[in-house]
Amino acid sequence: MEYNVLPLTRLVEQFERLPGIGRKTAQRLAFFVLSLPKEEAQKFSDAIMDAHEKIKRCKICQNLTDSEICSICSDETRDRSTICVVEDPRDVIAFERTREYRGLYHVLHGLISPMDGIGPDQIYVKELLARLADDTVKEVIMATNPTVEGEATAMYLSRIVKPLGVKVTRLAYGIPVGGNLEYADEVTLYRALEGRNEI
Amino acid sequence: MEYNVLPLTRLVEQFERLPGIGRKTAQRLAFFVLSLPKEEAQKFSDAIMDAHEKIKRCKICQNLTDSEICSICSDETRDRSTICVVEDPRDVIAFERTREYRGLYHVLHGLISPMDGIGPDQIYVKELLARLADDTVKEVIMATNPTVEGEATAMYLSRIVKPLGVKVTRLAYGIPVGGNLEYADEVTLYRALEGRNEI
Repeated sequence: MEYNVLPLTRLVEQFERLPGIGRKTAQRLAFFVLSLPKEEAQKFSDAIMDAHEKIKRCKICQNLTDSEICSICSDETRDRSTICVVEDPRDVIAFERTREYRGLYHVLHGLISPMDGIGPDQIYVKELLARLADDTVKEVIMATNPTVEGEATAMYLSRIVKPLGVKVTRLAYGIPVGGNLEYADEVTLYRALEGRNEI
Repeated sequence: MEYNVLPLTRLVEQFERLPGIGRKTAQRLAFFVLSLPKEEAQKFSDAIMDAHEKIKRCKICQNLTDSEICSICSDETRDRSTICVVEDPRDVIAFERTREYRGLYHVLHGLISPMDGIGPDQIYVKELLARLADDTVKEVIMATNPTVEGEATAMYLSRIVKPLGVKVTRLAYGIPVGGNLEYADEVTLYRALEGRNEI
């Protein structure tokens, strides 16, 4: 009991378990929350439980939502012929930020990783296939991360989606915009060369 | 509403207002809290309000405590003739970590800063003087930070405490242990020279 005050110790411990927050930062955050007016602290406390109680997964795309069907799936103006498959709800946010993609999403909530005992049944593959049952969807974009697990999941999915007569695509590899060739790794540079386009 | 989900937006906003936490980190923390089992999230939420409700200021030293008198002030084995005056409860934690200081503390909860409109009445000076009324206290250590406000507060307090017949001391300035002379600023080095001791 470093602080000699149990409620304070407990609050610091709660902050300390957050990812990327060490002992010193946890202490700083706990003292900050303590210094807030009571109603502000209440808002913080409520926001945690409120999010926990109200946020669930969209029945269609498995993205996080506070209603049965998320705002993207229920948006009539979106292109229903394309589904972008991502690992995590945060990836949806990243794509939405581009303001360019107008299709739908499917959130897997994980990647196939035999090392961690995660197979196709542990992520939302069945739900994706159910969405391809009628002929609405013409293209599935594999937008998993360019990691070993991301690649493996994209390969696995493409192998079961292609036979359904749906076009399967993968995000382009290449040098990041604003990046520096000097610092690009060999594989990325090779992929950028391979995927070169006429200008 | 970047996330299209109000409870999530609110949770991210709550994390974003914490000191040193930007938009990206706030998002990461919010998603982490969301991924916690419900009882763990409840613990986090409760810890905030619990700390807010139970933590108050010690009647004697103004340090944070969950009882009327803090554990340091009520500890019979501590040396009651010395009071170490600090700005913030975190400074008490820092001193306690040394395990060397056995006297009492007095937490000012601020420093005199005319620029910010903080005078002696806004910090706990009156309460410090009340503790010097009988003859128990023989020494007051000014342990405010070595900043302009810290110095000003130490000077101000020493001027009103000295006439009461109490010895007033200030923390030693010098090079930090494990530090490098090469990187010490001129003022620190000068103070270290000035405060040199025979070995």
